Amino acid sequence: MSENITAPDILRCAYMEIVVTDLAASRKFYVDTLGLVVTKETEDRIYLRTFEEFIHHNLVLTKGPEAAVAAFSFRVRSPEDLDRAEEFYRARGCEVRRNRDGYVDGIGDSVRVQDPLGFPYEFFHEVEHVERLAWAYDIHIPGALVRLDHFNQITPDVPTAVGYMTDLGFRTTEDIRDSEGTVYAAWMRRKPTVHDTAMTGGDGPRMHHIAFATHEKHNIIAICDKLGALRESDRIERGPGRHGVSNAYYLYLRDPDGHRVEIYTQDYYTGDPDNPVVSWDVHDNQRRDWWGTPVVPSWYRDGSRVLDLDGNLVPLVERTDASELEETIGADGFSYTRAEEGEESMPEWKQGEYKLGHSL
Amino acid sequence: MSENITAPDILRCAYMEIVVTDLAASRKFYVDTLGLVVTKETEDRIYLRTFEEFIHHNLVLTKGPEAAVAAFSFRVRSPEDLDRAEEFYRARGCEVRRNRDGYVDGIGDSVRVQDPLGFPYEFFHEVEHVERLAWAYDIHIPGALVRLDHFNQITPDVPTAVGYMTDLGFRTTEDIRDSEGTVYAAWMRRKPTVHDTAMTGGDGPRMHHIAFATHEKHNIIAICDKLGALRESDRIERGPGRHGVSNAYYLYLRDPDGHRVEIYTQDYYTGDPDNPVVSWDVHDNQRRDWWGTPVVPSWYRDGSRVLDLDGNLVPLVERTDASELEETIGADGFSYTRAEEGEESMPEWKQGEYKLGHSL
Amino acid sequence: MSENITAPDILRCAYMEIVVTDLAASRKFYVDTLGLVVTKETEDRIYLRTFEEFIHHNLVLTKGPEAAVAAFSFRVRSPEDLDRAEEFYRARGCEVRRNRDGYVDGIGDSVRVQDPLGFPYEFFHEVEHVERLAWAYDIHIPGALVRLDHFNQITPDVPTAVGYMTDLGFRTTEDIRDSEGTVYAAWMRRKPTVHDTAMTGGDGPRMHHIAFATHEKHNIIAICDKLGALRESDRIERGPGRHGVSNAYYLYLRDPDGHRVEIYTQDYYTGDPDNPVVSWDVHDNQRRDWWGTPVVPSWYRDGSRVLDLDGNLVPLVERTDASELEETIGADGFSYTRAEEGEESMPEWKQGEYKLGHSL
Amino acid sequence: MSENITAPDILRCAYMEIVVTDLAASRKFYVDTLGLVVTKETEDRIYLRTFEEFIHHNLVLTKGPEAAVAAFSFRVRSPEDLDRAEEFYRARGCEVRRNRDGYVDGIGDSVRVQDPLGFPYEFFHEVEHVERLAWAYDIHIPGALVRLDHFNQITPDVPTAVGYMTDLGFRTTEDIRDSEGTVYAAWMRRKPTVHDTAMTGGDGPRMHHIAFATHEKHNIIAICDKLGALRESDRIERGPGRHGVSNAYYLYLRDPDGHRVEIYTQDYYTGDPDNPVVSWDVHDNQRRDWWGTPVVPSWYRDGSRVLDLDGNLVPLVERTDASELEETIGADGFSYTRAEEGEESMPEWKQGEYKLGHSL
Repeated sequence: MSENITAPDILRCAYMEIVVTDLAASRKFYVDTLGLVVTKETEDRIYLRTFEEFIHHNLVLTKGPEAAVAAFSFRVRSPEDLDRAEEFYRARGCEVRRNRDGYVDGIGDSVRVQDPLGFPYEFFHEVEHVERLAWAYDIHIPGALVRLDHFNQITPDVPTAVGYMTDLGFRTTEDIRDSEGTVYAAWMRRKPTVHDTAMTGGDGPRMHHIAFATHEKHNIIAICDKLGALRESDRIERGPGRHGVSNAYYLYLRDPDGHRVEIYTQDYYTGDPDNPVVSWDVHDNQRRDWWGTPVVPSWYRDGSRVLDLDGNLVPLVERTDASELEETIGADGFSYTRAEEGEESMPEWKQGEYKLGHSL
Repeated sequence: MSENITAPDILRCAYMEIVVTDLAASRKFYVDTLGLVVTKETEDRIYLRTFEEFIHHNLVLTKGPEAAVAAFSFRVRSPEDLDRAEEFYRARGCEVRRNRDGYVDGIGDSVRVQDPLGFPYEFFHEVEHVERLAWAYDIHIPGALVRLDHFNQITPDVPTAVGYMTDLGFRTTEDIRDSEGTVYAAWMRRKPTVHDTAMTGGDGPRMHHIAFATHEKHNIIAICDKLGALRESDRIERGPGRHGVSNAYYLYLRDPDGHRVEIYTQDYYTGDPDNPVVSWDVHDNQRRDWWGTPVVPSWYRDGSRVLDLDGNLVPLVERTDASELEETIGADGFSYTRAEEGEESMPEWKQGEYKLGHSL
Repeated sequence: MSENITAPDILRCAYMEIVVTDLAASRKFYVDTLGLVVTKETEDRIYLRTFEEFIHHNLVLTKGPEAAVAAFSFRVRSPEDLDRAEEFYRARGCEVRRNRDGYVDGIGDSVRVQDPLGFPYEFFHEVEHVERLAWAYDIHIPGALVRLDHFNQITPDVPTAVGYMTDLGFRTTEDIRDSEGTVYAAWMRRKPTVHDTAMTGGDGPRMHHIAFATHEKHNIIAICDKLGALRESDRIERGPGRHGVSNAYYLYLRDPDGHRVEIYTQDYYTGDPDNPVVSWDVHDNQRRDWWGTPVVPSWYRDGSRVLDLDGNLVPLVERTDASELEETIGADGFSYTRAEEGEESMPEWKQGEYKLGHSL
Repeated sequence: MSENITAPDILRCAYMEIVVTDLAASRKFYVDTLGLVVTKETEDRIYLRTFEEFIHHNLVLTKGPEAAVAAFSFRVRSPEDLDRAEEFYRARGCEVRRNRDGYVDGIGDSVRVQDPLGFPYEFFHEVEHVERLAWAYDIHIPGALVRLDHFNQITPDVPTAVGYMTDLGFRTTEDIRDSEGTVYAAWMRRKPTVHDTAMTGGDGPRMHHIAFATHEKHNIIAICDKLGALRESDRIERGPGRHGVSNAYYLYLRDPDGHRVEIYTQDYYTGDPDNPVVSWDVHDNQRRDWWGTPVVPSWYRDGSRVLDLDGNLVPLVERTDASELEETIGADGFSYTRAEEGEESMPEWKQGEYKLGHSL
């Protein structure tokens, strides 16, 4: 069916529109604490960008009754790619809409779809340019966010998701598997970084996180230090740490509605077509954190619901494949530091807490 | 009794002698992984120093049948301070010994005592000078350890320990207390940093950790990254994170015998006599980690036994005061992020794990 | 002529082959000091790569009688792009050669041309994969070079060079101009960084530099510190500093043959087709160094000769357009810090040295 | 004469009072750009402190008709040390004054003297405590200044100055000499860093600079980046670079009146009485900058005049010993990178500029 359909030429993940229940509280978090730059504010929306961005925004906060994600938006290379996007999704029987004036300010002609996985995807090319504040060091803060790096989505069937995204022109850079062939997560890119979005196994469709990049590791530490000074350290869910997957240094925060935000720096170039795919064993204790720090269960469990094109919550489909949480933390789950030693590779003094630190 | 006795003028914590059961395994950890500089090696001892040190060593690894600490060693200002040390401890009824040739290589005339808390303390002035490798950037590694920063000792009765150490000339810079007046830990200094040693409440005498300093935070991250690459990430017990107490960025490792090593950077100047003491509430969730990261129970629980002057393990005395572990993690324990909100200041999505992440 | 010729789809600058006169001295510099990873060594060649690279090499040192550049090599997307490269250059009347076995080890089918500007350009797709050492933190050094970032070429007529490179599929991201329209330098990219190569005005064809990336700024400082410790600080020609153009933090070194090597970190994403071009005024004192540090004249003056396909030095063509060196440093040259104040914007206490510091 | 006089027990350099001609311009520089914390402002004075300070101020800007230094102020251990200071200086025939209410706000009982070298020195113990903002990461900036580190003074006869300062209780940590025994500069400390003040040879008494510390090297880079963004890069006089002497990473700025400010990080512990003194050869090209970067002549030449206790400029005494500027940069001056190679150790490509880059 899709073989003679050309996928739109996607440049990169460009922005996410999230619904927040308290615009003032969200503004305090994203603007006052994280220091995202306000491009525009209306009564019910705030448009934010990173310091190195030249398009109108990387994040739209829309006031609404229930926290959710309204759009995962990708920029395409040319206006014609919007026609290709329409065709691509119509061929898959998806709900497709188009708005020549854009769904939000600053963006022109746009296509919004509810994709085969249930996610609200948007594609656009036309966009208002704004000042790239890369050189504006007089207004940078210690934890300056300089780029939107990627999205991360929760979906019950990762191989199906990977197949669809590959048709859409994405390439897998890394994944997590087990020896039975179950895929727990996959990282997929258009721009030559480790990902523009990742597919994480779980009940979905849900949004796992949106990630912004800093230049250096100390910038991420500065964000934590500031949260401590503000007595908002409980916004920190996981990290900072070093990912195994992606090799990036990371931090996960939760915004006032519980939306998860990652701060991320220093993955690697992946732009060659034969870029080697890195597969991690789900039991490798260093896959999610290179230093073996246990992953807090909420990180596996929680996610943001997504909206359909009419603004209603998309119903969840349960994951039936094995769960990474259960495989590694649950009653029969285990992890190892050294594959050849298996589960016993945890040191004696750590074994007690290690399992307990993981338990629900 | 002690009022007309002058305490020795202690310059700083200078080195620790630890007993290790497998010298080759310890060498791999301290030399190959952490990159401490070997000043000298004999059949049963390895003398190690940091890159900016000019005295013979900051750590002595002595091969022995059981992991323990043989000496917490402090350098004094002058040879005469050794006589003062002898007098100071004899007046307290302690076992005192003196060796004009030093107990280990590189050190001259030395006094060793078993102090009122049961710890083997050493004092010396004469020491062999070695090359200060501060400028030897051709041999520095990404995680370069540049100074010995402090010791940390476990003792059942912190106020008693503080009183004794104050007599010895130490000053408290920070402590952890509760509203009933129980003291859980105190940080005490001679050189003008936050501490040369800390007194941590628990069954003692035991050694909690020895801490080395790096210049910057990325140096500590580099140590974790290297441990990951070596598949020894299970040496990481806690951190990296930002301390509340001391404001330093930290990491705790466990050596092959379970001895705890801290890597530490960026506390503050404390040298004025009226330097303000910072007291932390034991229930303040940011006291031990400014970012609110839960403290792994082993960090509270485990410690290294210490030897008396004849090389026998000193018996443990149980702590009878309230335990920080129980107060903050145990069945009735609690922590808060915002004092005015009390225990409820943990966000709903975190409450479940938070308690569980703490439980034994 | 070229309108119906499709340019090869170039992925990125991939490696440079340079001729060095003393292989042992060059090995000492590139391997022992800079820490590039040796993929392979033969009697007269050393193949080097960066820590995050997965193709066989990023730099080939070839022993020869005279220091020069033998190839600026770019990787193309597919084998078919080699045919396109052949056609592209033949249509321009260039000398074109092809070697199905590659001109150096590790590389397969290759096209080498002497391009319209006189440079030896190479294109290849097939390449031997090697281990990506991104996670091998146990062998990383404080100044770890993680990627090949870009080339920089000296050519007398920058607009002509930009036109040709645009035909070849490159896009300009930044340039230096004056109010009369003279172009002094242009930065051009395939991968979405500021450049894969830059065209710098001067007598050419010559190679200005090859640039490797580090993750953070302290990595670059570590390289300088190491050179100081080795008493080779005279390898440092310029920097470290912050570029105006590209916004990257930089350092320029000279290898034992005088070939210039840049170490570079933290430019910005440029992958959108409408990425804004940044034009700098040649008199803006912050264009070459954002901090206004004077550029040492050798940096403008010196460059490496390049070889034709038979291994002979390509004759130099003189630049006839205005020279950046003369415009900003020479007898009538000037720079300003604040455009509206013009030349007077240098503070009184600095004016004397500033001009003198620039003079030849 | 002085042998039975006890010097005051000086804790550390505490603050400098400088006279500025335009308080608003100075406020813009020290507060808006460098981010020093305002403790208090009056019509003609601004009191500033660093983020980790708990005493009232580290810098006082006093409005006056001519740029100068009104006081180099040191804190002493106890109130009695003020009597010792009076006696110490009276015994040397110096003008000595005492003000029980302090000469500036926030400071109590104070002694001000015109010292044997002509400098206005102040000593105090009583001081108002203010909040130590070490943990206030919500208001820290990328270039956060955390401590006052040291002063630097210009005096014609360095050995005489060292003798006097040694009597005052200071110890030399490093110096610059030549093989004839001429001393060009000496670094002297009370607190255990490389210095509380340095004595630099030249026409004096003048103030060379005041230095503030940051935690990490990137903080210093951030100050330069901000100055570039503000188009005030011409405030940067020298650096950033790595000192040979002190091993610190440094930057020198000039304030609106030309007063020189150093930003400084990461020297080493010097608190042991036998701390090895490091002597540098005046011809060693890495002594002032470990990377061999030429020192701009203004840095040797310029300094701030100092005031006597009546507020008049102290007349200058010319240096008669050899000048470091002339020895290393002047007509017969030279430097080497490798001692055994002498002047020839500069590479051929660099020799021309190197001498010229140094010339006046």
